Amino acid sequence: MQLGMIGLGRMGGNMVIRLIRAGHECLVYDSHAAAVEALVAKGAQGTTRLEDFVAKLTKPRLVWLMVPAAVVDPVIGSLVPLLEPGDTIVDGGNSYYHDDIRRAGELRAKGLHYVDVGVSGGVWGLERGYCHMIGGEDEVVRRLDPIFRSLAPGVEAAARTPGASGEPEPAELGYLHCGPNGAGHFVKMVHNGIEYGLMAAYAEGLNIIHNANVGSRSQVDDAETTPLRHPEHYKYNIDVARVAEVWRRGSVVASWLLDLAASALRKSPDLDNFAGRVSDSGEGRWTVQAAVEEGVPAPVISAALFARFTSRGASDYADRLLSALRFEFGGHVEKPKAEQ
Amino acid sequence: MQLGMIGLGRMGGNMVIRLIRAGHECLVYDSHAAAVEALVAKGAQGTTRLEDFVAKLTKPRLVWLMVPAAVVDPVIGSLVPLLEPGDTIVDGGNSYYHDDIRRAGELRAKGLHYVDVGVSGGVWGLERGYCHMIGGEDEVVRRLDPIFRSLAPGVEAAARTPGASGEPEPAELGYLHCGPNGAGHFVKMVHNGIEYGLMAAYAEGLNIIHNANVGSRSQVDDAETTPLRHPEHYKYNIDVARVAEVWRRGSVVASWLLDLAASALRKSPDLDNFAGRVSDSGEGRWTVQAAVEEGVPAPVISAALFARFTSRGASDYADRLLSALRFEFGGHVEKPKAEQ
Amino acid sequence: MQLGMIGLGRMGGNMVIRLIRAGHECLVYDSHAAAVEALVAKGAQGTTRLEDFVAKLTKPRLVWLMVPAAVVDPVIGSLVPLLEPGDTIVDGGNSYYHDDIRRAGELRAKGLHYVDVGVSGGVWGLERGYCHMIGGEDEVVRRLDPIFRSLAPGVEAAARTPGASGEPEPAELGYLHCGPNGAGHFVKMVHNGIEYGLMAAYAEGLNIIHNANVGSRSQVDDAETTPLRHPEHYKYNIDVARVAEVWRRGSVVASWLLDLAASALRKSPDLDNFAGRVSDSGEGRWTVQAAVEEGVPAPVISAALFARFTSRGASDYADRLLSALRFEFGGHVEKPKAEQ
Amino acid sequence: MQLGMIGLGRMGGNMVIRLIRAGHECLVYDSHAAAVEALVAKGAQGTTRLEDFVAKLTKPRLVWLMVPAAVVDPVIGSLVPLLEPGDTIVDGGNSYYHDDIRRAGELRAKGLHYVDVGVSGGVWGLERGYCHMIGGEDEVVRRLDPIFRSLAPGVEAAARTPGASGEPEPAELGYLHCGPNGAGHFVKMVHNGIEYGLMAAYAEGLNIIHNANVGSRSQVDDAETTPLRHPEHYKYNIDVARVAEVWRRGSVVASWLLDLAASALRKSPDLDNFAGRVSDSGEGRWTVQAAVEEGVPAPVISAALFARFTSRGASDYADRLLSALRFEFGGHVEKPKAEQ
Repeated sequence: MQLGMIGLGRMGGNMVIRLIRAGHECLVYDSHAAAVEALVAKGAQGTTRLEDFVAKLTKPRLVWLMVPAAVVDPVIGSLVPLLEPGDTIVDGGNSYYHDDIRRAGELRAKGLHYVDVGVSGGVWGLERGYCHMIGGEDEVVRRLDPIFRSLAPGVEAAARTPGASGEPEPAELGYLHCGPNGAGHFVKMVHNGIEYGLMAAYAEGLNIIHNANVGSRSQVDDAETTPLRHPEHYKYNIDVARVAEVWRRGSVVASWLLDLAASALRKSPDLDNFAGRVSDSGEGRWTVQAAVEEGVPAPVISAALFARFTSRGASDYADRLLSALRFEFGGHVEKPKAEQ
Repeated sequence: MQLGMIGLGRMGGNMVIRLIRAGHECLVYDSHAAAVEALVAKGAQGTTRLEDFVAKLTKPRLVWLMVPAAVVDPVIGSLVPLLEPGDTIVDGGNSYYHDDIRRAGELRAKGLHYVDVGVSGGVWGLERGYCHMIGGEDEVVRRLDPIFRSLAPGVEAAARTPGASGEPEPAELGYLHCGPNGAGHFVKMVHNGIEYGLMAAYAEGLNIIHNANVGSRSQVDDAETTPLRHPEHYKYNIDVARVAEVWRRGSVVASWLLDLAASALRKSPDLDNFAGRVSDSGEGRWTVQAAVEEGVPAPVISAALFARFTSRGASDYADRLLSALRFEFGGHVEKPKAEQ
Repeated sequence: MQLGMIGLGRMGGNMVIRLIRAGHECLVYDSHAAAVEALVAKGAQGTTRLEDFVAKLTKPRLVWLMVPAAVVDPVIGSLVPLLEPGDTIVDGGNSYYHDDIRRAGELRAKGLHYVDVGVSGGVWGLERGYCHMIGGEDEVVRRLDPIFRSLAPGVEAAARTPGASGEPEPAELGYLHCGPNGAGHFVKMVHNGIEYGLMAAYAEGLNIIHNANVGSRSQVDDAETTPLRHPEHYKYNIDVARVAEVWRRGSVVASWLLDLAASALRKSPDLDNFAGRVSDSGEGRWTVQAAVEEGVPAPVISAALFARFTSRGASDYADRLLSALRFEFGGHVEKPKAEQ
Repeated sequence: MQLGMIGLGRMGGNMVIRLIRAGHECLVYDSHAAAVEALVAKGAQGTTRLEDFVAKLTKPRLVWLMVPAAVVDPVIGSLVPLLEPGDTIVDGGNSYYHDDIRRAGELRAKGLHYVDVGVSGGVWGLERGYCHMIGGEDEVVRRLDPIFRSLAPGVEAAARTPGASGEPEPAELGYLHCGPNGAGHFVKMVHNGIEYGLMAAYAEGLNIIHNANVGSRSQVDDAETTPLRHPEHYKYNIDVARVAEVWRRGSVVASWLLDLAASALRKSPDLDNFAGRVSDSGEGRWTVQAAVEEGVPAPVISAALFARFTSRGASDYADRLLSALRFEFGGHVEKPKAEQ
């Protein structure tokens, strides 16, 4: 099947390669000639001119965007005048699903189709396959099935769930039509919100293990420090990297994220190549906001999100106010950093 | 290698079978004759008399306990008079690691060895293998290596971590000597704390997806209800079971717990065979308490733990106080249940 | 000063009485004749016809709305055709500040002024005075000063902050011009978010005291229940109502909310006149969403908000999933309600 | 009434002065002569020799300790040989209530009485009075009533709770016999846990207001930063100090802690005299641990506690792991500090 890809970064480029390997015909467009050439070398056709790109696509056209969320609207704005009724735009980036609902409406008025696809898989997707969460009209999504099927990992990537038999359904291959427009990115949004929670659970737990030796450290003894009542319970020097490794097999907490944690800790057990300023790229925020609007609790996911904010210094003013209050009511003076 | 097993429930029984399959010699003891007979039928030797059990074990004896945490001390109390210096007791249950430190000291004074082992794997371990987190003296743990090796899943249970090569170390097989006594159950405790966090992350996220249709429900319109500003953003009826399934392949949130969620949701998409009163069996509590004593934050794990408490009605008094306060300052009257 | 009030409920009606007492001229409008008559009896002029109401106001008119957030826009829609350039609309309800920004722009285009005022004080404000947080144009807000001054509690309502001297500034009287449009409701929104956090802190703490006797209750002893290691630490039957009372004088946690808690607990120590289904009326949600958009952590306020959601059953699906997962990996069966 | 005070720091010294003013006879002991002399100048009798101190007290003796929690046991150890059956030791510090239970038992065996008293009031208590939460035997506590009555603020310190009439009971004066030994410090412990939650609620809320201008700051635009969708909603420069001031009168969030916040912010609106490393002195930790042992949720209090831990760098390892994971799955590189 023919597909035109716009955006040839880490994700888009690898997806094209995976599609070519599966026998699909890929046209690629990027304003950077080098990015285009790299994929032409792998078997794609390519261009740095958008008009060319559109002209070369067979009608009804299928254009897949793999660009940062912030530029999806401008790219669609450039594309629309070149497209014709019946063409389809797929947004495979990390758009906010509110934008999908709006865009689908705007494009529908012009006779164009819009499909929102949340894609998970990161830099590993080329070999491992990508997981797709899809929102859009039934028939349009159905037409794209060969693409999804080739990008997805396939049923053999995991044991079948007990009770599943016969011809695997798409969800078992690694893609799911979740509902009308926005549903794909809605599910991807929550996927990432869960990811924040999972990551934070591992990080908290491994931090507790990392600090299992507090009873061996010299204890400060002053009115501003809580004494450790039983230092003898905290005298363990535990190899965190090996703990991550051992949990990968047979334990209840085995996961792909744990595999990655084991990998990171093997490279650098103290993780001192990182400063601990953790970015967030939107989906965690939107997940919390969706929970709030739905009126359902999300204490774990929000705690994970807030920890990222705090890691970047966003609680400094609040923390200073706490110290100020302690000084006001009790005359407590902040301890200098070295003594904490 | 010879091993005597006390406690033939879900865990202990299956571990014996796995050991027998691997060629070890297993003596089993349980006060329930049926439990013993079932394992004798599988190739174990067995008895319902503790004296017999101890007498039949070759010295230095290896006695492995797989009993509820609450009865470990009584069982050790019965065993100790029958054992001799050099014998080893392994506690493979879910003991609090404080008890391990105490017990190891008491047994050491009698010339006995004690090994604490956190075992993960649940009802699946027989086929999948068990993950072991071990605390104890170096030499004693080394002597038990053949047992751990047979119970563990083995390196082939997961792809090797990038950078690992050569003869796999024990952590890659699925067992780890974490440190001196208590270290095994300490790591297992945190393992379960993480498990609480992971489970809660999935539960919160899938609940948000389950409620993605709030905009389609009839909205109550009164001063006690926050109106949904954009019902058009919450009109999705998403198949939660299929979402769990699709994430199993290629996505960042794939895990063994997700596999189980997919399995549970396939059996019962509405989960109406459960009431949602979630038990906790101690390790989550201890993990939070360890974090507090170490002075390290655990907001995700504690949120997960507290959600379980709340699911059992433990916040009722607090909630009633909130309603009472709202009535006091604003004259707000609680809404009847049906209208929420 | 003359003021026209629309909305004569708990808040609006009392505010009118307080203004009349202070010598202001109040016109009131409500579609319910009884509400109007009640205030006429207190010295207001009144009408049930909106045209009348507007006609009787001296130009430039001052119209203050004290209506539910959901009807502010419709009321403004009815008012606008009757008003003239230079007139001012004050929204003293609990509007979302986004709406203030929008409305101010729409009204500005018609030559009308808009002031958003967050009013705190609840049913107690008539005697205690109201706290006002104000957003709008400098000059317009300045013109309303006599109104705010009369509604506010006045400086004598609390000891002056150390360092304050001379003529008290408005913030010391109980009203503050916080910034341009929206700033008033923004600050009120956060005020309510804080209120959620404060209420939850008291509720949690008093719940811990209420349950200080768990060690005296009969303990269930099974694998699904964490045993209480030291029941002797939890044998207190503490009088929660008296605890709330004693903290009111001399302690660090004294507050007006605590006064109300003491009042509620005096009436009903077990609070059994409440079911514990706690409503939320929007500001807590918006506060969390503002925190998320600003990228600053709000773990306490969000935990308080989520506890309210949970009190209304919003975590049921999530809880059932947790039970389902526990069954899947460990064969754990939910305990019946009676045994928890 | 006669009382011997050991420990003449911020709390103990002021309590003695307040007792002397009320006509009580105070003997003071401290190893620092200057501390003793200062109180002798105020009308106390004093000594730097413990034997002297005990000898001068009329039997049955009343010895009140106001020393750091860590030295209570050593001081009691020195005292006990000097005391006689029927004497009473009061611990007015911040002891863990578990220690009270133990100490009371040990002292009871020697015929000595023990009373645990949680005292709130901080550096303000001399003028404002102290709030006392008391644990101990009925008769012993009753005997100390004149002391508690003089230290307490008295009923006039706050309006009486609606429904209270007649002779005020002790709780209305500011002291409460909460139960048997340990109950006093148990209630004080929870009091402080609530205090953590209240402080954090204000700190979070004021931080949200402090950051209400994020839409006016220059926005970084890269894949690692979530764009602010509506910068026009976050263009407020709000005077946080005045906000704290305005809430003090008439609002629902008025409290003594808010008074202190207004005071601190008046001195330093940017709080730049503090670094934001917030100490915790034990009671918050114990409150969370009590909640966990009771099996009741405390998400707000624990979030407040964890924020303090994090303010001191305790989540660094966890944060670095999150960055490491993001690099592993998505190739995300941490942003340098300046760009956040």
